Amino acid sequence: MKVQRYKHDSLVSYTLGATLTFELVKCRPELVTRVLVSSLTDSSEGNRAILERCRQENIPVEQNDKAFNILSPKGNCFVIGEFRKEAQQLAEGSHIVLVNPSDAGNLGTIIRTAAGFDLHDIAIIRPAVDIYDPKAVRATMGAVFHIRAEYFDTIEEYCRRFPDNSRYAFMLTSSRPLTEIVPQKPYSLVFGNEATGLPEHYAGFCQSVVIRHSQAIDSLNLPIAAGIAMFEFTKSEWAAN
Amino acid sequence: MKVQRYKHDSLVSYTLGATLTFELVKCRPELVTRVLVSSLTDSSEGNRAILERCRQENIPVEQNDKAFNILSPKGNCFVIGEFRKEAQQLAEGSHIVLVNPSDAGNLGTIIRTAAGFDLHDIAIIRPAVDIYDPKAVRATMGAVFHIRAEYFDTIEEYCRRFPDNSRYAFMLTSSRPLTEIVPQKPYSLVFGNEATGLPEHYAGFCQSVVIRHSQAIDSLNLPIAAGIAMFEFTKSEWAAN
Repeated sequence: MKVQRYKHDSLVSYTLGATLTFELVKCRPELVTRVLVSSLTDSSEGNRAILERCRQENIPVEQNDKAFNILSPKGNCFVIGEFRKEAQQLAEGSHIVLVNPSDAGNLGTIIRTAAGFDLHDIAIIRPAVDIYDPKAVRATMGAVFHIRAEYFDTIEEYCRRFPDNSRYAFMLTSSRPLTEIVPQKPYSLVFGNEATGLPEHYAGFCQSVVIRHSQAIDSLNLPIAAGIAMFEFTKSEWAAN
Repeated sequence: MKVQRYKHDSLVSYTLGATLTFELVKCRPELVTRVLVSSLTDSSEGNRAILERCRQENIPVEQNDKAFNILSPKGNCFVIGEFRKEAQQLAEGSHIVLVNPSDAGNLGTIIRTAAGFDLHDIAIIRPAVDIYDPKAVRATMGAVFHIRAEYFDTIEEYCRRFPDNSRYAFMLTSSRPLTEIVPQKPYSLVFGNEATGLPEHYAGFCQSVVIRHSQAIDSLNLPIAAGIAMFEFTKSEWAAN
């Protein structure tokens, strides 16, 4: 099977590097189609752990220098996992809802944070960047293998599927600061596009919330705003541990 | 004067793009040595505002297509500001302390967040990435022109200069969760390197603090952890507005 540069309609995607590939073979071995090594792959502890796991799970390991030129032209990666993309469905419960996210790195960072705060279900409203873009996968640091993500064509479609969630829309124009919110579970934390935020009409079917900040900046960076919101909504659960 | 690719020892740095360049000429006109435009620069509102400000402040404007090839080879930038780097000194008060930050984008994002929460003084402990790297400048979205940053060779040097600040060191090994902290002003919020965090001995001269998260991730992304911490430490001030 030939290795090809990742495209949105590829059936497989890739984990570039040992840390990510180890998370893949550890958490989701059933998705892995093969692990690629190069003639430069050394026998470091991390690499040995990956290969050991491949043996246990009967995952093919293939030496393929050409694949590294195609998938990691910068040459700083020595192990690659190839895995089947899967269509996922959100579970009932609290969700993160990302409306039109446009940056793969940001999407990955938000997923990493969500997994860190036990928010395992991510709704993504199209048009949106691809969660299986290797850049997004890398930014999750492996957390993509701990969560469920589902794409929706419209926010209305999402709302019809989960009509009973309390929806909180993060908007600069809101007058209600995050510090005054008492979370009602299950909830949906709704964030807009990096450049444009959420359209005003979201205030009509969500409770709008603002993270107050100074006039020195136009807005917080999207993953930062999402991180602060996720922390605030979940912190009572962590405090109880 | 020839335009050269940015290096750490360059006397000037650059703002790539209209948004950043507007922040520069608006906030710190005294630092600007010239504004570069290309033959592709259009008369959009943003560009006109920059040129108007240059006229007001007697800032030279120079058409120089070659400069864009050198500084922005991707070709998606049509205005560049050139500005003198300045040595800055921290003011007394609360500080962000970044120990060995290694990623320019992360440093920029942290500065953007700090400016957003009115934390205007950033100590950076070497070895560390360069705050004037155009990548860092870009990630601040202009907030670099609203803050003071000072480099220190060691944390001891920083502590000697500001002995009375309450120091909070964010460490995964701490047993004290962020939710239990009652901030004592002025404070120093201390964060470690992206990959390695803070060395254990920081717990000897700082109060250690942890942002609790699940086992699904090894750690939060550094700018996310710093953003959550800054929000928590400053939120009572924003609530009062």
